[in-house]
Amino acid sequence: MNDKDQPSYHMDLEEFRQNAYRTIDWVVDYLANVESYPVLSQAEPNEVRRQLPAEPPEKGEGYDAMLRDMTEIVLPGITHWQSPNFFAFFPANSSPPAILGEILSAGLGVQGMSWATSPACTELETHMMDWLVQMLGLPERYASHTDGGGVIQHSASDATLCALLAARERTTGGGSNKAGCDGQLVAYTSAQAHSSIEKACMIAGIGTENLRLVDVDENFAMRPEALDAQIRADKAAGLVPFFVCTCVGTTSSLALDPVAEVAKVTSAHELWLHVDAAMAGTAAICPEFRFINDGVESADSYTFNPHKWMFTNFDCNAFFVADRAALISALSILPEYLRNQATDSGAVFDYRDWHVPLGRRFRAIKLWFVIRYYGVQGLQHHIREHVALAQEFKQWVIHSDDFELGVDTPLNLVCFRHRDGDAVTEQIMHTVNRGGDMYLTHTRLDDHFTLRMSIGQTNTQRRHVTSAWEQLQAVASAVTGS
Amino acid sequence: MNDKDQPSYHMDLEEFRQNAYRTIDWVVDYLANVESYPVLSQAEPNEVRRQLPAEPPEKGEGYDAMLRDMTEIVLPGITHWQSPNFFAFFPANSSPPAILGEILSAGLGVQGMSWATSPACTELETHMMDWLVQMLGLPERYASHTDGGGVIQHSASDATLCALLAARERTTGGGSNKAGCDGQLVAYTSAQAHSSIEKACMIAGIGTENLRLVDVDENFAMRPEALDAQIRADKAAGLVPFFVCTCVGTTSSLALDPVAEVAKVTSAHELWLHVDAAMAGTAAICPEFRFINDGVESADSYTFNPHKWMFTNFDCNAFFVADRAALISALSILPEYLRNQATDSGAVFDYRDWHVPLGRRFRAIKLWFVIRYYGVQGLQHHIREHVALAQEFKQWVIHSDDFELGVDTPLNLVCFRHRDGDAVTEQIMHTVNRGGDMYLTHTRLDDHFTLRMSIGQTNTQRRHVTSAWEQLQAVASAVTGS
Repeated sequence: MNDKDQPSYHMDLEEFRQNAYRTIDWVVDYLANVESYPVLSQAEPNEVRRQLPAEPPEKGEGYDAMLRDMTEIVLPGITHWQSPNFFAFFPANSSPPAILGEILSAGLGVQGMSWATSPACTELETHMMDWLVQMLGLPERYASHTDGGGVIQHSASDATLCALLAARERTTGGGSNKAGCDGQLVAYTSAQAHSSIEKACMIAGIGTENLRLVDVDENFAMRPEALDAQIRADKAAGLVPFFVCTCVGTTSSLALDPVAEVAKVTSAHELWLHVDAAMAGTAAICPEFRFINDGVESADSYTFNPHKWMFTNFDCNAFFVADRAALISALSILPEYLRNQATDSGAVFDYRDWHVPLGRRFRAIKLWFVIRYYGVQGLQHHIREHVALAQEFKQWVIHSDDFELGVDTPLNLVCFRHRDGDAVTEQIMHTVNRGGDMYLTHTRLDDHFTLRMSIGQTNTQRRHVTSAWEQLQAVASAVTGS
Repeated sequence: MNDKDQPSYHMDLEEFRQNAYRTIDWVVDYLANVESYPVLSQAEPNEVRRQLPAEPPEKGEGYDAMLRDMTEIVLPGITHWQSPNFFAFFPANSSPPAILGEILSAGLGVQGMSWATSPACTELETHMMDWLVQMLGLPERYASHTDGGGVIQHSASDATLCALLAARERTTGGGSNKAGCDGQLVAYTSAQAHSSIEKACMIAGIGTENLRLVDVDENFAMRPEALDAQIRADKAAGLVPFFVCTCVGTTSSLALDPVAEVAKVTSAHELWLHVDAAMAGTAAICPEFRFINDGVESADSYTFNPHKWMFTNFDCNAFFVADRAALISALSILPEYLRNQATDSGAVFDYRDWHVPLGRRFRAIKLWFVIRYYGVQGLQHHIREHVALAQEFKQWVIHSDDFELGVDTPLNLVCFRHRDGDAVTEQIMHTVNRGGDMYLTHTRLDDHFTLRMSIGQTNTQRRHVTSAWEQLQAVASAVTGS
């Protein structure tokens, strides 16, 4: 076998360079024109699939066809999360520096499962997590020079699962990893918490019947005294309370659980306290919003998503623990084929033991680039801008004859509804979303169908928000015939 | 507030285009020169970190500095998984078409958690999974037009965890999700299985004491009669056997469990049968290697990693189930804020219910591009080439005076050791890895320290394999003084 005699099907590097330039041009065109597409895809089920060949190609084809199909087949099936008129769910922001980081990560193609399999992948990640501790004013015990540390996870769902597992491990002294769960452990979160807590309880063998959804106050925040009463009742029943998940900004209405008050309860009962600040956490970059983290200094673990509001492409969840030994003990396995001198020395972090998967991409580059390109100052500027826009929008609702607030929300989310009730509110939502000029989603608050105006997409400016408000008013008039 | 008066810290699109071109050039240079770097990073612990500023920058900086730091700080800390001289662990391949797909995915920045949040993201993924069923000759019941279907997961560890959860759900009739685990469920895998099975049992509350490591034969493959005996013993003890994980190509030595024989046992006892073909699965693209999947038609779930040997950048694990209802039932949660008309209609897949995380990237593009660019023919060619090289290397070992096989392996892995024993073998490994011209790792077989020569990196050609063999022989001579 001689290399020269062998055909190769690989794309050679010069062809790759030219195709990559064209791909960059495609992305630039896309981002330049993103406002011209309907934000919510208007595709019907199966509309994309029926344009694809039923069978995989026997022979390879040129790149032209692929880029063309991206435009003709894929784009109409895209809901444009990077449109400045995207006000649905929460933002899942990208930004140019983050995309550049993704390109480098894809080009290097390394695995960071152990320190030795690419020391830079682990060390840059640890360093970025330490930077975030400083940037957000998080407690020093989450920094890597203490007993704690941070790690990039796939998503907040994964981070919350890992927090639950670390708590389970600490509470049972390793027993649950060995003997399995026994139906006695009880977890707590607010009745408004994200579905990921319930999912984590299912996955970890805790069971949803052993997850207590604690009562909330009029702002949909957890009531610490209700938590305390529930824990006491469970203990009296012979159960084993072990884990409390508080939310700093619920998905539904950005409710802020009173972490400091909750921490007094978890501390008294010696339970693991986890803080889920998935979207809102980014706000703490601005000192004036850092009140959201009051009490976090007592939390055993904390998570937020730079891939939501911090201009860093998905996936990039940041997860911090005060006692990394509990986390590692919950998830560590060391088969012979993964052993190496660096691991055996104990001098390095092997991030495979900090989460579910073994393999891991080099995700710290994009975070490094975002922080360096914007600087703390630039990030603060855009976060403040988003918050100001949302608070201005909230005033418009307050002074509107047609709409009313669902709850008074802080930061960058506004919850509101039409005064004529659920049916009208829902019809307004479907109408504006079908119109394609904006996209927003809903929740239920006090059993009312409630719209969520989430302002945080990278490029959202005042003109997008004013235009959205004009549309909502116009559609409301059309729907109600007023 | 007026848009024009507001400073913006965003990189404008023309600046992004130019920076992206330069980034592409950096990646092309990297790939062109990857053979010139030591394959295993020679960095010492903390060598990367100590070059990074202790504090995040207050002001933003230009992109020049970032690209320069990639070269000067990051590259020396990289272990080069994309070097053709990388023979360690298993391949984690990238390829130009896959990188192009990653760029587009990063540029679109969409979330595919629900069908409605980008129909193309879900439909292209379902379509690619169906293509893989055809390409690998997998049973039709994994295709989406049946009760089954496929989904991209983050890693094989995640896929195996999901298989375990679906099995748990089916066996307990939903009881484990509600009441939690009770320590009675028992899982089975071979004594040579990947650590991810044990990890999944820890995570899912099954407990490692309830994972039976079934005896293997002289080729390190599971013994079906030992499995049957163990299941009977557990049933007799009042326990509830529920899940068997077979390996089609163990990590340690590429051992192939006899899936068809195991399936007779799982079928008789009505247990969930999962097949983990993480690396080796790709071989089934070639009809002559499809024997590895004998018996898979009886498996409830199957997984392999296009991100290992199929030239598709991490992360891209393919996971198939015959009964998607069991999987979805194990993982589904539908809070109000995720409800939408398409989901309520039941006409679409919402992939958030097929795995742990809620958010998900558009990972199907890179897989689509790889399959289209190479064609089935091109993929077959390179897989055959890797297998032929490994089998040739094996013959060199067999005919060597210094080395001997640890076990006779099929496909693209060779397990071998020096005839003078563990200490010499280990010293040879450390010496060649420190030398930087190649990188290979080890396992233990029959309690012997054994080297693993894994041949499957995208660009590995015959000259790299012959050079590796020459180095191993030369180092062996130096080490033994012969």
